[in-house]
Parts: sequence; C-alpha cells; structure tokens
Amino acid sequence: MIPRGFSFSAVNAGVKSPEHKKLDMGLVYCSQDATAAAVFTTNRVKAAPVIIGMELLPSQSIRALIANSGNANACTGDSGIEDARAIMRAVAGELKIYENQVVPMSTGVIGMHLPVARMLEKVPELTNGLGNDSMAFCRSLMTTDTFEKIVEKQVSEARILGIAKGSGMIAPDMATTLAIVLSDAKINTQLINKSLLNIVSTTFNAISVDGDTSTNDTLIVLSSGLVAVDWPEMESALREVVQDLALMVVKDGEGATKLIRIRVCGTKNDAEAKTIAMSVANSLLVKTAFNGGDPNWGRIMTAIGYSGIEIDPETVWMSIAGIETVRGGQISPHYDEQKLQQALTENEIQIEITVGQDTGSFVAWTTDLSKTYVEINADYRT
Amino acid sequence: MIPRGFSFSAVNAGVKSPEHKKLDMGLVYCSQDATAAAVFTTNRVKAAPVIIGMELLPSQSIRALIANSGNANACTGDSGIEDARAIMRAVAGELKIYENQVVPMSTGVIGMHLPVARMLEKVPELTNGLGNDSMAFCRSLMTTDTFEKIVEKQVSEARILGIAKGSGMIAPDMATTLAIVLSDAKINTQLINKSLLNIVSTTFNAISVDGDTSTNDTLIVLSSGLVAVDWPEMESALREVVQDLALMVVKDGEGATKLIRIRVCGTKNDAEAKTIAMSVANSLLVKTAFNGGDPNWGRIMTAIGYSGIEIDPETVWMSIAGIETVRGGQISPHYDEQKLQQALTENEIQIEITVGQDTGSFVAWTTDLSKTYVEINADYRT
Repeated sequence: MIPRGFSFSAVNAGVKSPEHKKLDMGLVYCSQDATAAAVFTTNRVKAAPVIIGMELLPSQSIRALIANSGNANACTGDSGIEDARAIMRAVAGELKIYENQVVPMSTGVIGMHLPVARMLEKVPELTNGLGNDSMAFCRSLMTTDTFEKIVEKQVSEARILGIAKGSGMIAPDMATTLAIVLSDAKINTQLINKSLLNIVSTTFNAISVDGDTSTNDTLIVLSSGLVAVDWPEMESALREVVQDLALMVVKDGEGATKLIRIRVCGTKNDAEAKTIAMSVANSLLVKTAFNGGDPNWGRIMTAIGYSGIEIDPETVWMSIAGIETVRGGQISPHYDEQKLQQALTENEIQIEITVGQDTGSFVAWTTDLSKTYVEINADYRT
Repeated sequence: MIPRGFSFSAVNAGVKSPEHKKLDMGLVYCSQDATAAAVFTTNRVKAAPVIIGMELLPSQSIRALIANSGNANACTGDSGIEDARAIMRAVAGELKIYENQVVPMSTGVIGMHLPVARMLEKVPELTNGLGNDSMAFCRSLMTTDTFEKIVEKQVSEARILGIAKGSGMIAPDMATTLAIVLSDAKINTQLINKSLLNIVSTTFNAISVDGDTSTNDTLIVLSSGLVAVDWPEMESALREVVQDLALMVVKDGEGATKLIRIRVCGTKNDAEAKTIAMSVANSLLVKTAFNGGDPNWGRIMTAIGYSGIEIDPETVWMSIAGIETVRGGQISPHYDEQKLQQALTENEIQIEITVGQDTGSFVAWTTDLSKTYVEINADYRT
C-alpha cells in the first residue's frame, strides 16, 4: 500500500557504464509539498548530493527525490555539485516544480564524475513513467544488495513505506548508504526532526557490517501530510520501520551468513554500553569466529577490554545463545562448549554482556565476516 | 651473535593439547641480574602473565623469562595468576634464583586454564637444556606465524637480539602479542623505560593487521649490562631493532600478501596524523581493495573522512605508489588508472596523504585483507 500522494519510476541510465543494463536511476514524486527531514553521514568527506541535501533539508515543500546507484558523486568537487544540480534542474523542469524541491541521492563508486549527459537524457522517461512500482525504484538503488529492502506499515489510516539500500560500508554514525521513508501522515517538521536523530541512534547507528562509514549515508523521511495521525503512535511506527530497515541492511551485509545481536548492560550510561557493544560488533576476530561457528568467547572479552571504556574484568558476565559463558570475567562453571558449538550453527545469535552494576544499556547488531565479503570487496569496482 | 650472559631452551609441553607436538614452552636465562623494562597491552582485560609482569617490571634484577604459546592464560582469574606463579616458582627453584626474578609470558587461546602439571614436568628439561639455540626459543612462541621473527644488531661491542611473535590481533596500542629484546649493553633503567614508550609509539603502535588489541601484548627489553655503550647510539639501535620486528610482524599478518606504508602529513600535530593513518590502516574496505589490486582510492578518502579528525576535504592530496591520485580532494589531473593498477601488483605499496598545511606527520603500516585471513580466523581454535 503506497502512501497517498507518492509515485515512482526507475530506468537504466548506464550510470556505472553504458554496458551496465540494470535499473540505476530512480524517481519518487509527491503530488503535494512534502514535509522532509533527514539525517546525513558524519563523514567529513561528504558526497555532492549530501552537501546539497544538507542545504535543502529540513523542508516543508519537497516534491521529488532523484536517486542513482553505481556512482556516489563523492570526491568530485564543484563540478560534482554542478552535475547533481543539473539533474535536479532537469527533473524540476519536467515536473514543473522548483530545483530546490528536488532532493538528490547517490550511491556507488567514489571519485568518478556522473555521466550527466546519459542521465539527463533519461529524465523525461523517468517523469513520464511515474506510477506505483515502488519495487522498481527500490531496485534502482541496489549495488551489492542481494534482496530488496522494503517495509510497509499502517498507523490508523496513514501508511508508511520504508525503502533502504545496503550492504557494505555499514557502520555506526548513520550506517546506511540510503534509506527513504515515505508516509502520508501529517507530521510536524520540528517533531520529526527531533525524533529522527533519536530513532537513528538506536537503529541505523547500532548496526555494523564492516565498520566503514560511507560518504553518502542518508536517511530521509518524506510526508505528504494527507492523513491526520496521533504523533506518539506515528513516532513508534516510524521507529519500527527504520528498525526493520536497519536489520534488513545488516542481514544483507556483504557475505554475511549470521545475524548477531549484542546487548550490553550494567554500564554507567547508554553511551558506554554502546561503545562496548560496537567494539564487539566491529571486531574482525569476533566476526570471523562466528563465521567459523567457533565458540571463541575470549575474542569477545578482548573486544570488551579494548573498547576504551574503563571496566573491571571481574564484573563481566556473558551469555551466548542463552548459554552462560563468562562469570566474573572467567569461564562460567555452567559453560558447555559442545552445546554452544551446536547453538552457533543457528542463523541468529544473541550475545548478552553485563559489565558493572549500573543501569546503562545498548543493543547492537552485526554479522559474521566470511570469505565472500573479501571476494566482493577485493574487486567491487573492476 | 647472542648477547653475552643469555642462554635459551625450548620444549614441547603439549600446552594446547597433549597431541600438539610443536615447541610451545621456552626459557631465556641471564647469568647476571638483568635490567628489564617493558610495555604492556592497554586492553582492560589483561592476561595473568601481564598482570604479574606489570608488578615485576621495571626491575634491575631479572634473571629469567618463561614463555609459552597455545594458551594465553587470560580470563582465568586468580587461579590463572596462581598457575603462572607455580611455573615461575618451579623455574626459580631449578635455577636457584627468586620467583620474582622470573618474568612469565603467554600467547594463544583466551579463557582456558594452563595445563600446569604438564608444564611443570617440563621445567627441569628447560633449565637443563639451556644453550645457544635462540631460534628454537623463537619457535616456541609461534602460533599462526609463518616465519621466525629475529633481528640482530651490534652497537660497538654490544649485541642486541630481538625476537617477536605475530601475527593476528595486531593493532595499535602495543601491537605485538610478544616481543623480546635482549642486549648485553649497560643501560640505565630510567633511560630505557622512558625511551621504550617513545619507541613503541612509532613502531609496534603504528602497525595494524586486524585492529584487535590482544590481552597479552608485551614488549620486554632485558640487558645483562656486561658491555659499556654510548646511550644515544644504543637507543637508536634499539629503535631500529624494534622497528624491524614490528615490520616483520605486519608482513606476517595472517593471510597478508602486501605490505602497505601509509604516511600522513600536514595535520595540526603528529597525534592527528596518527589517527588518520590508523583509520586508513584499519579500514576493511581499503584492505580488501588492496588485496584485489583495485585502485579504489575513494575508500581511502572515505577512511580519512571518518577518522574523527576535522579535515577540509579540499586540502587533501594523495599519491599511491608514487602516482598522484587526489589533488584538492578530487581525482588528480595526473591520475593514470592503468599505471596505478600495474603498480598495485607490487608486494610493497606506499600511500602518501597530505591533509591541511601544518607540520604533523605519522607513518603507519598495514596489510591487505585476504580470504586466507578469514580462513585462518574462522577456525583458529577448533
């Protein structure tokens, strides 16, 4: 069920190269001025569309979103900005709206200029082809993704549609590449703006595939405002949609075979719990151990120890897949290696870690690291 | 040429398991009280031998060093300390020295208790077998290392012998697992103590294989004091020995096929340059790109951008293998992709990065990340 007011289209524009025949350029159009809020990458090196997006948003009058995969338009300087602007201008011209009502988004290889001529040529096809095919739009964002990431939700009469693109360069600090949440709910710009940072901190900023934070990460929420909603209900639905998208992104982490949930508690505050959880989530040795189904919990202890947070190892308690592994910083008397090894064959694994006796807590998600990850990334470009 | 006063031995004690028939327990003996200084892991979770070593060192009366591979004696609580002490005591008894003149060192799997009975049984064989075989001692430290890491150097009449063990869990903050430097030079304890931290910061703390900081990292310098030396000359020789060991460790990084030197300059201070250099050195996407010989410099820009240091992307200049790649944050007009791709087939690659216009600089070393790394670490234990 598509949120009222929105339509979609997608084409192949040969963004990566003229021979590349997949969908790689997509358009979202809103029939009314949409309320728009966004969270962007914290990387100091920001792609041109991110620089433009940060100028445009938040806004109460966005009408379109023009996206491409295959080229990130990052490290492309002033001409990268000019390229993105040219495409925005063309879209605005066809749709009879203003250039600054069009938000650009790009994902793909860094450091190459967009093939603007090829892309401009496709703009009329995009604007003429607008319809209900949100799936095709979703596909036009995909790079190494292995499945479409789409979430739908309803809040009373209002509809929410979330679309995301993974799947490498996933790390805390706006860990997404691209995520788009559309709704037809009437939302106050200030409320959504404030809420979005909060939502991101426990969703997209709590997942890790490889610890690299991209130059293009963007989460944008667009609302056509056609349906009145109760804000607390809407906020919690938004949180669920973004959460689901984040989990889909981590599940589709390049080469991942397992989803690992890491809950840390007992710290002085949530921030400390997050630092420890992400230290474990990003550890290569932890991730490769899970890939091999090896119950090497010592590597988790090691990652807890080097997170930078002051901990007393004697207060550490850990369970993996419900099996108590560590008690007081040492191997638990209840530890059962065979049972744990069996449990590690599952696709989803929970790690519970208690550090200290305070009330801070955080939940992070990560994946194992497989040879396929290396394969994908050793020659993604070539 | 072995430094005067030192002798060595090594045995198989079945540390990992009784079936494991490699050398895994080694002894270094000094005929006189040796001056000893050390740098230990910054991990909050410290192995029992590290906890004991931190109590014993610095010292002016160390006589022996008892080491094992196959078991880290980490996360083993009070009984881990007692186990290490029992072995120290046995060595001291055989050698007629004090328990606190024996420094313990362990490397291997975390969270298992040492097989103390088997190890105690081997102590007389170790003390009776003392001789010149420093190579056998070196081998007794090895886990996944593929070659022995030994460096010899002479300063006037004095001799220096460096021995190190790699090769996973290599990361800044005392990135070594175990390194031992022996000399017969007369060294002032305070001078060596102060100097060692400085030496480590640009050597073992400047290398990265997987970004994991172990629970057991120790660099120890022992001097029998039999030969007078000029300290500045000695210090610079020590720095070279430690540097060479660090490079050997990174070259033998698990599954590594390439050594990558990253020089960052132009930052406000050396610390900022180090943060940026290590951000690049630890990036999975950078490391896998080099494995595939892919000139994907955008990933290096990305890692520079998320290091946490405030930079202006427009001041970034980069060359890879001597080929100017980035100028002013964008692709250089001199960039030649084919030439770079050719250069990336070499085993050693230099990256030069200038960020800003100040005088800070730092050199880091890393490796590529290969499928073999995942293979080794997916089932190191089992």
